[in-house]
Amino acid sequence: MELNEAKKTLMEVQSKISAYRHASELIYFDGATIAPKKTAENRAHTASILSAELYKLATGKETVDLLEFLDGKKEELSEEENRMVFLLLKDIRQMQKIPLDEYTAYRKLLAGAYDLWRTAKENNDFEAFRPLLEEIFETNIRFAGYCAPDKDPYDYWLDQYEDGLDKKTCDAFFDTLRKRIVPLLEKIKTAKQVDDSCLYGDFPEEKQALLSSYVMDVMGIDKGHCMLETTEHPFTISIGSHHDVRITTRYVRENFSASLFSVIHESGHALYDMASEDRYAYTALDGGVSMGIHESQSRFYENLLGRSRAYTGFLLPKIKEILAEGNPKLAEVSAEDFYKAINKVEPSLIRTEADEVTYCLHVMVRYELEKKAMAGELAVKDFPEEWNRLYKEYLGIDVPDDKRGVLQDSHWSGGSIGYFPSYALGSAYGAQFLAKMKESIDIEAALSAGDYSGINEWNKEQIWRYGQLYQPDEVLKRVLQAPFDAGVFADYLEQKYSDIYGINI
Amino acid sequence: MELNEAKKTLMEVQSKISAYRHASELIYFDGATIAPKKTAENRAHTASILSAELYKLATGKETVDLLEFLDGKKEELSEEENRMVFLLLKDIRQMQKIPLDEYTAYRKLLAGAYDLWRTAKENNDFEAFRPLLEEIFETNIRFAGYCAPDKDPYDYWLDQYEDGLDKKTCDAFFDTLRKRIVPLLEKIKTAKQVDDSCLYGDFPEEKQALLSSYVMDVMGIDKGHCMLETTEHPFTISIGSHHDVRITTRYVRENFSASLFSVIHESGHALYDMASEDRYAYTALDGGVSMGIHESQSRFYENLLGRSRAYTGFLLPKIKEILAEGNPKLAEVSAEDFYKAINKVEPSLIRTEADEVTYCLHVMVRYELEKKAMAGELAVKDFPEEWNRLYKEYLGIDVPDDKRGVLQDSHWSGGSIGYFPSYALGSAYGAQFLAKMKESIDIEAALSAGDYSGINEWNKEQIWRYGQLYQPDEVLKRVLQAPFDAGVFADYLEQKYSDIYGINI
Repeated sequence: MELNEAKKTLMEVQSKISAYRHASELIYFDGATIAPKKTAENRAHTASILSAELYKLATGKETVDLLEFLDGKKEELSEEENRMVFLLLKDIRQMQKIPLDEYTAYRKLLAGAYDLWRTAKENNDFEAFRPLLEEIFETNIRFAGYCAPDKDPYDYWLDQYEDGLDKKTCDAFFDTLRKRIVPLLEKIKTAKQVDDSCLYGDFPEEKQALLSSYVMDVMGIDKGHCMLETTEHPFTISIGSHHDVRITTRYVRENFSASLFSVIHESGHALYDMASEDRYAYTALDGGVSMGIHESQSRFYENLLGRSRAYTGFLLPKIKEILAEGNPKLAEVSAEDFYKAINKVEPSLIRTEADEVTYCLHVMVRYELEKKAMAGELAVKDFPEEWNRLYKEYLGIDVPDDKRGVLQDSHWSGGSIGYFPSYALGSAYGAQFLAKMKESIDIEAALSAGDYSGINEWNKEQIWRYGQLYQPDEVLKRVLQAPFDAGVFADYLEQKYSDIYGINI
Repeated sequence: MELNEAKKTLMEVQSKISAYRHASELIYFDGATIAPKKTAENRAHTASILSAELYKLATGKETVDLLEFLDGKKEELSEEENRMVFLLLKDIRQMQKIPLDEYTAYRKLLAGAYDLWRTAKENNDFEAFRPLLEEIFETNIRFAGYCAPDKDPYDYWLDQYEDGLDKKTCDAFFDTLRKRIVPLLEKIKTAKQVDDSCLYGDFPEEKQALLSSYVMDVMGIDKGHCMLETTEHPFTISIGSHHDVRITTRYVRENFSASLFSVIHESGHALYDMASEDRYAYTALDGGVSMGIHESQSRFYENLLGRSRAYTGFLLPKIKEILAEGNPKLAEVSAEDFYKAINKVEPSLIRTEADEVTYCLHVMVRYELEKKAMAGELAVKDFPEEWNRLYKEYLGIDVPDDKRGVLQDSHWSGGSIGYFPSYALGSAYGAQFLAKMKESIDIEAALSAGDYSGINEWNKEQIWRYGQLYQPDEVLKRVLQAPFDAGVFADYLEQKYSDIYGINI
């Protein structure tokens, strides 16, 4: 094999892979947004065939020979080429261990799973979702056994969403957080509760959509390459490359803040995805590197910036202009009271609408549940009971139904087990990024003016443009020049919320 | 090769082909509806790769050997299997004659063409579209030369949209129509013009959308398998199989009848597509057989039924309920005056909004233009001038700009040259179908009650369920038990419009 020819073929193989991904991503997006309701079977049929074609392309002798040849020429490849080869081989070696028929059967299963989950959630019917969920957990355990027979199955999957993550690290991380968050929460409970009634009222979807569009503009989203659709459970997805990124939200007519912050969250994902170097399009380097780093960006924009005094102060006049008709209190609320309302801390049922303090407790519930299930210590049929028990234990609240309980998130229907911890990790990464960013940017001034240009530029230079070139731990090291420290996040929470609630820590 | 094994493989090959089609159809639909504006290049990249993969699959030795083996076993195959083999071989033998690189370059070109056309139309800028249009015409001529070197290039393409159609047949057909339509139009011009001012006013998109949804329900569209989106130029597309059909429309705020009848038209296509036998899904037999038969259904529902006295009478109360706010005249109009307004005959600029009488003249303009261009007698750069000249000659009107002239239709941007005559053919087929249907159904009673069940059932039994099992001429023969006769359509027009305008023929 001739080296330059091989390098050229490497780019072609990646182009092909990205074309199949384009198809499957668009089919997923379509199914989760605008597709007619009874068309899931059609999508499943196509998804299983295209995934089999991709499997054959990726694991075929030609591709594997090419990658192994290039893998043996490390010194003659650029840093970027080496990383492409590494990422492709990692994926392919795992794929190869899964029999083709099991692989495609699972892709087919997942292609119909979102609709099944959505319907089960709508009908508050866990039993309708249970058999599928059992199959998803069983398959994840079995596939982990194929790919990493010496590894604990849950460790295997945690590592898929965040390189190097395992139960031990998670346990330690959550332990640190718990020790700081639980006492903080207890103190907040003794303080005077803030009034958030200005957030509730009657806010028609088309008005909320205007606000969504506005905050996307303020955040610097290029709508020529990014759009917003509605769905049951918000997500962000790249279609084929970072040149086409879609975000989704769900509007709740009675409460505009739910979708407002979900749009800001997903826009954070989108900004990251969209800013990969242009030459990374259609290669393995395109898009974000891990879910932890991804969530660090989305939760950074949603909370550290989005729920700040400066930004909520900037946004309030526009919110009043668009939505005040829906609630007279909103028309009159002061910037300070609005800031407090947005940051009201209260144990609640829905993770995506949770405040920053209790949020990680929601994640821990899911982590504990997944951990037990993946270890074979908890059957899927017992998920609702265990879920409700953990919500009582961690958050002190009773779950009234599965719709607002174990069925609330779409992740499992997408086969994502081991994803949830990255939300908490990302929040913690974000606090460290914020501290670092403050060394060179007057963030308060920027947010007060609704000017994201400097902030985005910093993130682009430091994180976004590298796409998947660096491992997550390298990203942290390069940006922070300090080790990861969950304490910084806990400090941030204590400082912010002791101020809002007038308590001493 | 073992026969039963080969039959099984035949189904698998078709399944694969339909999966690639699903991807490319969805990518097309996405680009024409909701995709962000600057993402065409991304789609073109993917479309060219997936089309190359499909080309290799379809023209590969394995597939060709299989089909030739089965083609040699005609007596041992069912009628349906034989037709599958025939249709696949026909496609593949043509594909094989086009070099792979030219084939994929063309698919890539087309994948970006819709956006380019849409922008050129928006900006009234023919020059921006011209180079692409030249390439499309040149490629069509070249491909015709590869596929049918002994055939006239335009004859080749006419036959692609309607088996057996050629310039000679078209010329004779249009000649018959012209001889009947032109005198009819002349007489109408001397009669008192009807008042259609009730159709114009201020009709917000969301209200028109309510009306669209209502007429789809009345027509018996199953929305679990069919949806409506907005686009620049209305079309219908199946996504992967007849289980998922999408229709599109464009709302004109000042005139609700434009989108109303485009929705009815596309719903006619959708009803046909959606009613293939379930076992035809993911096979070559799925969906409609030709554009002529397809247009016979869409224009049947749009005009022969949709613009009838009975149906407009049924629909008017609902239209008043939803839209009367937009124009006080609409609130007061009588059923008879509304019927006349809907059927106002007047030479106009836009084909899709043309009345039934002048409609075929719009088609003839496009036919003459294509015929000359495909014969090398007209350069693309001269299209606007020739277009405007023909509109003056055939319809007697001046075209003020290319936006409402040569740029109005999307067909060429999709590579469709030779498609337009099928609209006129379809209209004529429809008139014969209507005459036949009247032998067993009281259509006026059904339409007066908004009850499409009997009509749909008849079409399903006679035409729809067979999908692509029969050639278009066989469909006509089976249904009509009489030869095709354009005179029936001319009779229909004369009768309907002499009544509306109170003239004698």
